[in-house]
Amino acid sequence: MQRKLVLVVEYDGTGYRGFQLQPQGATIQGELETAIRKLTGEKLRVVAASRTDAGVHAVGQVVSFRTGSALPPATVVRALNFYLPPAIAVKAAYEVAPDFDVQRQARSREYRYSILNSATPSPLRIRTSYWVPRRLEIGAMNQACACLLGKHDFASFTSPEGTAQGTVHTVYRAEVSRDGDTVTFDMEADSFLRHQVRLTVGSLIRVGLGKLSPGEFEGIVEAAQPGRAGPSAPAHGLCLRRVNYAPPLGDLMNEDI
Amino acid sequence: MQRKLVLVVEYDGTGYRGFQLQPQGATIQGELETAIRKLTGEKLRVVAASRTDAGVHAVGQVVSFRTGSALPPATVVRALNFYLPPAIAVKAAYEVAPDFDVQRQARSREYRYSILNSATPSPLRIRTSYWVPRRLEIGAMNQACACLLGKHDFASFTSPEGTAQGTVHTVYRAEVSRDGDTVTFDMEADSFLRHQVRLTVGSLIRVGLGKLSPGEFEGIVEAAQPGRAGPSAPAHGLCLRRVNYAPPLGDLMNEDI
Repeated sequence: MQRKLVLVVEYDGTGYRGFQLQPQGATIQGELETAIRKLTGEKLRVVAASRTDAGVHAVGQVVSFRTGSALPPATVVRALNFYLPPAIAVKAAYEVAPDFDVQRQARSREYRYSILNSATPSPLRIRTSYWVPRRLEIGAMNQACACLLGKHDFASFTSPEGTAQGTVHTVYRAEVSRDGDTVTFDMEADSFLRHQVRLTVGSLIRVGLGKLSPGEFEGIVEAAQPGRAGPSAPAHGLCLRRVNYAPPLGDLMNEDI
Repeated sequence: MQRKLVLVVEYDGTGYRGFQLQPQGATIQGELETAIRKLTGEKLRVVAASRTDAGVHAVGQVVSFRTGSALPPATVVRALNFYLPPAIAVKAAYEVAPDFDVQRQARSREYRYSILNSATPSPLRIRTSYWVPRRLEIGAMNQACACLLGKHDFASFTSPEGTAQGTVHTVYRAEVSRDGDTVTFDMEADSFLRHQVRLTVGSLIRVGLGKLSPGEFEGIVEAAQPGRAGPSAPAHGLCLRRVNYAPPLGDLMNEDI
């Protein structure tokens, strides 16, 4: 009998060409499918809630797959972690209804972009933070963020190819905070366009450096034209933190993670 | 005219055979001396406040060297960061008196050992945390820590070769704390024996797992015999946080870092 399993996955995206299988090079999807094949003998496809780009990290990516295996979820977690490379780990596994869709049933996704805002670089944070040596004005950045909240056409925050599946989304949170020399941008939305967070951060950094006013930032949002925002902030500062679901899965995840 | 400069240095020790020059393999000292040679043309030796072992990290290592260069300290910081590999960065530079000794004049050193205490591993923390899947009892570990405070013979916390320069030291802080699945051990002392923190953590983990009682831990301290503590916790969880000095250098460092 086929079951559907959902995995919560953490990865260091540094050495990977992104989540999705590519003709060449290692991907998160490829590593997960290889580990599942080693465990169950099945050659199958996994589906991700959010396809992260090359170099982007995740602490709470959610993927699903159908399997004929009857292994308990806790055993699947341990066994996959045995087969996976150190850069990828399964944090939890759940059995879900056969028609559960990790993409469509996601209520929201949470991304975090980390900036090291200090005069000197930090070797211990180099893999997960983008280094911006000049002082960022957090107040101005948050003023700009306010116009992102709610339902908008976010076409300015993607490339022309990123508009295929619609560009109107709802943003629940968009906030910049500072803790010492670490500046963090947290964004939660029902769905994200390709490169949306990195293009948003690229524009917000310009606001933080005084090169763009919060009003001009709002103008970029209102224009709703691909190519207006940016430049794109580098991939290694970005991390998919969490994908939220309705109960019962959402409640189970809240307990575990 | 020769000046003496002091550098505050951060490094990811993952790929290095420790601070000190070795007959073979890359070291932090070697990389610093190469970068200084590229900058000033001088072939010289740097001296570290605390010689970290292979794989150990630092966010506040302190090194000194004599130079004929008249470059301002701020320029030295920027230029050395240009020449250094990404795993090493200079955070600050100061000119000190010619007789200043970064080892002898250090009032104390602060080390932190980071443990990931969760059922599953964490790819994003794999370089800087030691993964202990079984639940650690922080209360018992802190009960054990109490007997480390003050002036003691710490001979149990090193190997026979580590006792050459005396084993009596003063510990100012030894404390375990938990933040979610991260368990942190912070230790400050006037000076440390070779492997002292890692052997202390190895024994404390045994206490946290219920394999050793706080009273037995105290017995290990009181025995003052090399080889009694341990096993040694792995290097990658350890980080030299800070070296403390009297004013004026101590005050300058407090302002900058």
